[in-house]
Amino acid sequence: MSQSKKLALVVQSGTVDKLYCAFILASTSVAMGWETHMYFTFWGLQSLVKGAMEKASLPGDYKHLEEAMQKNLEKMKYPTPYEMLKRLKQSGLCKIYACTPTMEMFGVKKEDLVPEIDEMAGAATFLTIAADADVQLFI
Amino acid sequence: MSQSKKLALVVQSGTVDKLYCAFILASTSVAMGWETHMYFTFWGLQSLVKGAMEKASLPGDYKHLEEAMQKNLEKMKYPTPYEMLKRLKQSGLCKIYACTPTMEMFGVKKEDLVPEIDEMAGAATFLTIAADADVQLFI
Amino acid sequence: MSQSKKLALVVQSGTVDKLYCAFILASTSVAMGWETHMYFTFWGLQSLVKGAMEKASLPGDYKHLEEAMQKNLEKMKYPTPYEMLKRLKQSGLCKIYACTPTMEMFGVKKEDLVPEIDEMAGAATFLTIAADADVQLFI
Repeated sequence: MSQSKKLALVVQSGTVDKLYCAFILASTSVAMGWETHMYFTFWGLQSLVKGAMEKASLPGDYKHLEEAMQKNLEKMKYPTPYEMLKRLKQSGLCKIYACTPTMEMFGVKKEDLVPEIDEMAGAATFLTIAADADVQLFI
Repeated sequence: MSQSKKLALVVQSGTVDKLYCAFILASTSVAMGWETHMYFTFWGLQSLVKGAMEKASLPGDYKHLEEAMQKNLEKMKYPTPYEMLKRLKQSGLCKIYACTPTMEMFGVKKEDLVPEIDEMAGAATFLTIAADADVQLFI
Repeated sequence: MSQSKKLALVVQSGTVDKLYCAFILASTSVAMGWETHMYFTFWGLQSLVKGAMEKASLPGDYKHLEEAMQKNLEKMKYPTPYEMLKRLKQSGLCKIYACTPTMEMFGVKKEDLVPEIDEMAGAATFLTIAADADVQLFI
């Protein structure tokens, strides 16, 4: 049977280094034809608030490397995290989930979030998908 | 065969955001009837020292969100991380492991820890359980 | 068939607590005869720059625990992270990967890195290995 492989990511972080990790893994997964699921929670969920991902930066401990990294990314013409998210959605292979408990904890409403989200969901949805995935990672 | 599914978590973090992630995943897992294993190491292990989990806070980069989050948690009557740990234990489906190398590295003794721990164990115990789990995550 | 089990780690972090987590899991995996794969990216990759791992320290939030931890590690005669890496390589069971996109983002060249690396690779290499692993974790 030629069933495709499946990747399930929890994106708990909202710093640009972790967002790049998540989106590079997801983009690679989609490029290999894998079904790809990204479950955004806590700071990851907060980065889905409209306008937030564009402001994502490095964690405090690494702030001194931000400028050099941004320069290299520009030189490489590397897409931004949000551009990567939009391309992932266009592939038709990637589903984006927003964590409902986080939304309640931080008073975030559905209309505050970017339109690329497929589903508002709790942890049961993620665990059910992850149990059936070939690769599961918490980022 | 109706064998239940299994979740294996490494809890390396001791900040309240990551503790909530771990306990929400574990509580959901238990609610779905899954066998649930939580292996506490480093800052996660330190949060098992008596009285420590009650003082867990957000990481430095997110301190400014602490007050708003705590207010929402109270409004939601959300259980604290330690209350969630105690409920997990009562379910009979969740086992708690304390990482022995961490205890030695930080001079933590068994009697310093909360009584909910099932087993002091090293990485071999975790890997053996994880290899047989449906979902494994490092938090 | 007596095929050995397999561990696949992403090492995204470069702080000494996370490096110890990664190397303790990898060393235990090797001691159990498992095939072990460590994919170093972002701050993990930066810790593979010659001389960098020896300077790895605790994250900012935990700096106050550094001295006590280092004293206990000396008392335990615990190997340093880089010593653990070298032993892992000697086992013949552990492969070390350096993330090529990270190298480009931070202007790191092959000759800047320690000689223990087996392969410069992108995310596709990691995902392919991870999909076939018994335990996969993002550290």
